[in-house]
Order: sequence, then C-alpha cells, then structure tokens
Amino acid sequence: MAEFDQRPIGVFDSGIGGITVLKEIVRAFPHESFVYLGDTARLPYGSKSAETVRNYTVQNMKYLVSQNVKAIVVACNTASTQVFENEYESRPVYNVIDPGAQLAVAATQNKKVAVLGTRATVKAGNYTRKIKALDNSIEVLSQACPLFVPLAEEGWSDDPVTNLIAFRYLQNLKAADVDTVVLGCTHYPLLKTAIARVFGNYVTLVDSGEAVAKQLQADFNSGKLKSNSPTHPLILKVALTDKSDHFETLSSELLKTVSSTVATFETVSVI
Amino acid sequence: MAEFDQRPIGVFDSGIGGITVLKEIVRAFPHESFVYLGDTARLPYGSKSAETVRNYTVQNMKYLVSQNVKAIVVACNTASTQVFENEYESRPVYNVIDPGAQLAVAATQNKKVAVLGTRATVKAGNYTRKIKALDNSIEVLSQACPLFVPLAEEGWSDDPVTNLIAFRYLQNLKAADVDTVVLGCTHYPLLKTAIARVFGNYVTLVDSGEAVAKQLQADFNSGKLKSNSPTHPLILKVALTDKSDHFETLSSELLKTVSSTVATFETVSVI
Repeated sequence: MAEFDQRPIGVFDSGIGGITVLKEIVRAFPHESFVYLGDTARLPYGSKSAETVRNYTVQNMKYLVSQNVKAIVVACNTASTQVFENEYESRPVYNVIDPGAQLAVAATQNKKVAVLGTRATVKAGNYTRKIKALDNSIEVLSQACPLFVPLAEEGWSDDPVTNLIAFRYLQNLKAADVDTVVLGCTHYPLLKTAIARVFGNYVTLVDSGEAVAKQLQADFNSGKLKSNSPTHPLILKVALTDKSDHFETLSSELLKTVSSTVATFETVSVI
Repeated sequence: MAEFDQRPIGVFDSGIGGITVLKEIVRAFPHESFVYLGDTARLPYGSKSAETVRNYTVQNMKYLVSQNVKAIVVACNTASTQVFENEYESRPVYNVIDPGAQLAVAATQNKKVAVLGTRATVKAGNYTRKIKALDNSIEVLSQACPLFVPLAEEGWSDDPVTNLIAFRYLQNLKAADVDTVVLGCTHYPLLKTAIARVFGNYVTLVDSGEAVAKQLQADFNSGKLKSNSPTHPLILKVALTDKSDHFETLSSELLKTVSSTVATFETVSVI
C-alpha cells in the first residue's frame, strides 16, 4: 500500500464561484494536485430545474473520474442539492451543504439562521432540512438572491450598486435579527464585504469553501483520504466546458491570493 | 400551389429576451401559428464563446425544422452573430442584427450611434460592421451591459437599482452625444424605461423585435413568405429546454399585453 496518494482532488462548479472553494482547499492543502472543472458552457445552474442540474452534475462527476481524481468536491450549492451519494465510482464525494449546515448550527447563539442562495438552492430547501435535523429549535429563514451571481461574475465585488442590491435582498433578514448567515452559493464569498455591510460585524457569515476544507482536513486526519507527499508541488489544472478569457482572468486573480502557482487552462467537453 | 401556408413561424432565444421579439411579431401577424424555443437549460448565451453559441444555434434551428416551421427567427442578438446563412433547410432565416442596423442608419441624424449588447455581441462586432457597411461616415460606439440580462430575468424592469446600473453603463455614451441607441440584446426592451431615462427622450431607441417584424412584413408583401389564412386563430406554442415556472409566468405576462391567446408550454430536448 502506497504511503501517499498522488491522484488529484477533483472540484467542480458551473463558473467562478467554485474557485472560492478551490482557493480555501488550496490554502489548506498546498501539496495536492487539483483538477477544477468549470461548466462555463452551461452556467449558471441556480436558475435551472432540479432535473437539469442533476443531469449536469452527473456529467461533471463522470468527467472528474475520467481524470483519475481521488475525491470529488461539489463546489456549487445548487449542484450539491442534487448530489445524493457520498461516493461516486469509489471516490468520496463532498458537497458544500453538509459542512455549511454544521458550521451554522455551531455558530448561532440566538438560534436564528439565514440561508442565502440561488433560486434553485432555496427552493430545494436542503440547508433548512439539514440545520433542522441537527437542531430543530433553530429558526431558519431563506432568501434567494438571483443577482448576486452575475454581480460576482461581473467583478463588482465592492461596489455601491452591489451594496444597494444586497440591502434590498437582505433587509428583512437583518430586521429578523439573525446572528448567523450561510453564504449558500459559492459565488457569495466574493460579495462578503457588501453582505457584511448590511448585517454588521456581530453576525457570523458561514463560507462553504472554509467549511468543506475543514471536512477534507478531518478525512485526511482520519485516514479516509490519503494525502500527497509533503514535498509535492501544488498543481492546478482548470478545465472549462467553454473557453472564457473573462473567467481565466478572474480566477487567476483569485488563486493568486493563496498561491504563486499558475493554473493551466484547457477547454473540454463533458457531454 | 396552396394559397396559404399554415406552417408555424419558428422563433428561438436562450430565455425571456426572445419573447420581446415574439411579442412584436405576434402583434404584427395575429393569424399565424408560432413555435417559440427557449433554451433555458443553457441560458444565457451572452457570456459564452462564439463556438459554443454557434453550436447551440444550430441545434435550435434543427429543432425548429423538426417542428415543420416555414421560417426561423433568431430572436437573440448573440446567436445572430453566429448565424451565417439566409436559409436553413430551405427555410428563410431572420436574424435580429441586419434589420436593427438598417433602422439605426435610417434613424441617426448626427451620425453617432451606440450599440448596447452582451459581452459576446459587442466582441463579435457585427452591428458596427453592418452599420459601417451601410454608411461609413457613422461613428459607432459599443457598450457591453452584462447585468441587464439578469435584471430583466429578475423582473426588475422599472427599479432604482436598474436605473443606477443603466447610468453606470451608459453615462459615457450619453456624454458622447449619440442620437440613436440600438438595443442589441432582445432582453433590453424590457429595460427601455431605465435606458431612456439615462439618454433622454430625444434619443431614438432601436428595438430588434420591431425591426425584425418589419422585415417579415416586407417578405409577406413580396410573396417570399406566404401567410396563414386571415381567419386562422393565433396559436402560441412555447418549448423550453428546461422547465421553469419563473419563465412561464414572466413570458405569459409579456404575451398578455398583445394577445388574449394563452400559450401552451412544454419541455423538450434539442441535443
């Protein structure tokens, strides 16, 4: 039995949002190889039906398996609502909802939690069910924020327009006095400043990327996942279903904040 | 040779934008049958590459041919940049760019025209080339407005947030003193109020839907296209690649403004 597992960790999302998850995992595990799949030909997922999202999700997992990954991270909340397996083709599958729900339950003091997500994620209701399953006394409020993804994709992270839209979506949750807010879409950490500005600093923002990185760390510790050699250099491969210069620029800038390793980009088909 | 042609007119777009075109055509030809294809499983097109948009466009045209249409209206500017044929499987193909460019050239007095569009449409540069080909003395300025589509899809047509974003995108064009503005994305007529508010009423807004309806009228008049019987009731069939209640509600509301005929909706695959 080999001491190390050199196979890459596979991560996928529809677009730039999953890069916020990848960033947190790269920060935590700088000696791993990563294959990131961005389904840019079909983004966004958040406005699409459950059946279509499931269909895309399975195609993406198949692609990552074809890349010989040792684990699959579903770095998209909408896709996570349609992932019903803990394993796919003998690889462990990590969704972003389970660890996010756990962090939210641990964080709330006043038992009032808000979940922000795409229309599809809010409709699916996974966060509410999972938080309630962990602690039924917690009140969970949900809010779909459809414009947050295009604002993040446009790069207007810290902008008066974004502040105004954030206020519009979030004022009722603020008034309801929640003390914990789940950023239930992997794009939303890009708008953290605007979201925090509405709620104020005493509210805890739960970031899916950080949550799933903790989950992976626990599985590395327990031996469920085997790590790569500590002398292995970070390798970052980004596969996109549609070529996008805009995506390459945005994601390279994000990844630069955690590593000097330059990602390689290529265009692939997953159908 | 039959006097009338009962086959439907086929219209397609990625989402709700094409409904603004359909609306104008329905208003002009209330005795025709229509098959509208909304590629909601893969919307939006405006942020995707030319190759992917071409691929989707051909699949959509094939679907409409399978529905036995007599003409194909490409009710999407981004897709129109990737339509290089005037006929497809012996059916005339109408794109929205050619008639829009013609109307703009006819409308401008000071020879300063602005084109608003998605990132893909602006990058493709078709409007600029076509307007210049008609009158090389016209100065053409372009502006990508990526947030306009999600704002229209969200239904925030007349909203302070939309006004603010419109001002952000358009203030330089306003300062450049254009007298004609091409709404180079079929979603943008939904934001006409906000766009007109930036430019003022003395600027002409060119709407692709109205432009393509005029083109169809000319071809009905010349006999290139044969109309349905004047006693034929309007039939509206809407095929979506992804089921979407939100889409059905928005499009039904839009179509209600021109006809009391209720559209039937179904989900289809075009791959």
